[in-house]
Amino acid sequence: MDTKFAIPEIIFGRGSLNHAGQCALRLGAKKVFLVSDDGIERAGWLGRLMEILEDAGVTWIYYPGVTPNPRDFQIELGAELYAKNGADVICAIGGGSALDTAKGIAIIASNGGRIQDYEGANRVRKPLPPMAMITTTAGSGADISQFCIITDMKRRLKMSIITRTLMPDVAIVDPLILRTKSESLIIQSAADALAHAIEAYMSRIASPFTEINSLQAITLIIANLEHAVATRSLDALEQLSIAAVSASMAFSNASLGAEHALAHALGGYFDIQHGLMHPILLPSVMRFNMAANPKKMADIGRLLCKRRGRCSFTDDRDAAVKGIETLEKFFSSFNVPLRLRELIPPEGRLLFEPICRMAVGDACNLTNPKPMQWDDFLAVCEETW
Amino acid sequence: MDTKFAIPEIIFGRGSLNHAGQCALRLGAKKVFLVSDDGIERAGWLGRLMEILEDAGVTWIYYPGVTPNPRDFQIELGAELYAKNGADVICAIGGGSALDTAKGIAIIASNGGRIQDYEGANRVRKPLPPMAMITTTAGSGADISQFCIITDMKRRLKMSIITRTLMPDVAIVDPLILRTKSESLIIQSAADALAHAIEAYMSRIASPFTEINSLQAITLIIANLEHAVATRSLDALEQLSIAAVSASMAFSNASLGAEHALAHALGGYFDIQHGLMHPILLPSVMRFNMAANPKKMADIGRLLCKRRGRCSFTDDRDAAVKGIETLEKFFSSFNVPLRLRELIPPEGRLLFEPICRMAVGDACNLTNPKPMQWDDFLAVCEETW
Repeated sequence: MDTKFAIPEIIFGRGSLNHAGQCALRLGAKKVFLVSDDGIERAGWLGRLMEILEDAGVTWIYYPGVTPNPRDFQIELGAELYAKNGADVICAIGGGSALDTAKGIAIIASNGGRIQDYEGANRVRKPLPPMAMITTTAGSGADISQFCIITDMKRRLKMSIITRTLMPDVAIVDPLILRTKSESLIIQSAADALAHAIEAYMSRIASPFTEINSLQAITLIIANLEHAVATRSLDALEQLSIAAVSASMAFSNASLGAEHALAHALGGYFDIQHGLMHPILLPSVMRFNMAANPKKMADIGRLLCKRRGRCSFTDDRDAAVKGIETLEKFFSSFNVPLRLRELIPPEGRLLFEPICRMAVGDACNLTNPKPMQWDDFLAVCEETW
Repeated sequence: MDTKFAIPEIIFGRGSLNHAGQCALRLGAKKVFLVSDDGIERAGWLGRLMEILEDAGVTWIYYPGVTPNPRDFQIELGAELYAKNGADVICAIGGGSALDTAKGIAIIASNGGRIQDYEGANRVRKPLPPMAMITTTAGSGADISQFCIITDMKRRLKMSIITRTLMPDVAIVDPLILRTKSESLIIQSAADALAHAIEAYMSRIASPFTEINSLQAITLIIANLEHAVATRSLDALEQLSIAAVSASMAFSNASLGAEHALAHALGGYFDIQHGLMHPILLPSVMRFNMAANPKKMADIGRLLCKRRGRCSFTDDRDAAVKGIETLEKFFSSFNVPLRLRELIPPEGRLLFEPICRMAVGDACNLTNPKPMQWDDFLAVCEETW
């Protein structure tokens, strides 16, 4: 089978935000369509970006309509604004929600129709406007990936849209921006990046080019997250940024797995922040996946155990099991929910069956070592309730 | 310091050559400017590529003027042919020479002037025509890199031209093509890839994104070259291809070092095939570089020693030294020249001083852990004579 490996041009470093103006110019920008969110506005980063664009002689129009779990109608509204204002380049600064909103707008602006028309893999036909993305979290990977996740409000479903043309042209990753993030957001983002790295490594379409990036991301997150949260050390935050970029290179090209499929289904239905799902779901899905590829799960297990000093393992299965246990301990050392019941009201449990049936159809499930059936998903929900 | 990481879209796999037609179409091709060489013609790969393009409805004009160490006048001739024939996409199939010829033509076709005008780093201003590159060796990395090496015939000098726009749009890597390569070419290409990986790892502008690719390339070449040469096993050849791609992702973004600077200077003056230089020069330059970064040279040493089973090391310096010794033994296990006097006539030795003065100015020397002076280069030449 052929494998493809494609990533945007990545500009990484403390202060690299300053390159945004030149990047926009290089993409042919006269009027940038700018997408961001409240938090980034308040932290001053949006204002700084506007200055940088103006200094480069680029004008902009700003679309502020971003929430966590971006919604279909926000995309439609943005696409109208884009068309009305004759913008020519799309630029977003924010977390996964702002970046995915911008990507959704890019699809409709160039391909027309409704965002639902593009759900699944490879359904976007026409090229998108040039895109420069500035991530403000070390997690989502939307600045690098071929993914876009938008919530269909009628079905209460997070749709996975995956297509080569969703890959931005330029990704700017500036670790200085992480300094203004809350502890909770740093942890959630790192958990997301860790899930990306692990699921991409186990993916049925992983390649040697994605695998080394997965392993690098796992190593760096395990080694740096506690320190980054405790001290806000810029060095540790930078290592988390490197990890997130590596994880994104991996999952954008190897795709993800059943854990993300279920996180989308539950998170979409109950409007839960994406990063909160992984500490709950990831270990359980890993246990399910262990049988399908014990050797690869053991590779991950050995890395996860390294942070607790040297472990010894009797065999691959033992390394895999100990790795998953170590991951559970790792997540429980942070102040995050560890059971679904902390995020979902009791009556929500009655809806698990239809939600799990939706998870089966998520494009991420296709590349799980062995795609999950709806009752496999249900077992994960019950186990983690 | 900001770091940039950019690579073409990579399509990797047995039979991936078949994607060439669709790739050309996606780049907007109506008439492809095709570059290749004698060996590829004779092996039938050029004919196959022509068929694939025709099947996709793309016409082509063929420029056959490629030799090892491509010359300035070949570039000028090619650029004239390109302009005359109204070609719109450049596509090369071959080793580093064919690919570099195509890249040189792309520069002149879009920027005018003489190829000498662009020697050094970042001197190409205007965008190049779209480029799809098909490598037929697991070594040069010209299909992925931002580099182009052309010989200035008057100065008998290989010029390093390095610029972001030289990065092709698409790289197609088809390990099936390696089956028709000679033993000698497989070894030379692997030695080149190994030098790329090691020099990029030691480079002053290496990043976490390039370093993991360097280490993967070193590991795979050491593990697979003997077997690939002895058996022509497609699995082993594929591993060498993966190694070459990884090494290229590393050096294209981290650049190279003094070993390549000297290989260009000596190889250009005496018209020696590039891949023959590394078994001779690489260990000697590594010894020089050890002091500047013993920790990183030790990382390489530990990987190089792995093939001989488990070694124990007293410290970083010991690991570095043992690694270099192991590399020398590795090269000497193949049927390749190990001393400069096997490639250069005795009177050539008298010219080492001016040649070493040219090596100082090669753009690759800038990123050596500590740039070499002309007498450092001279010491390497004398040591390896």
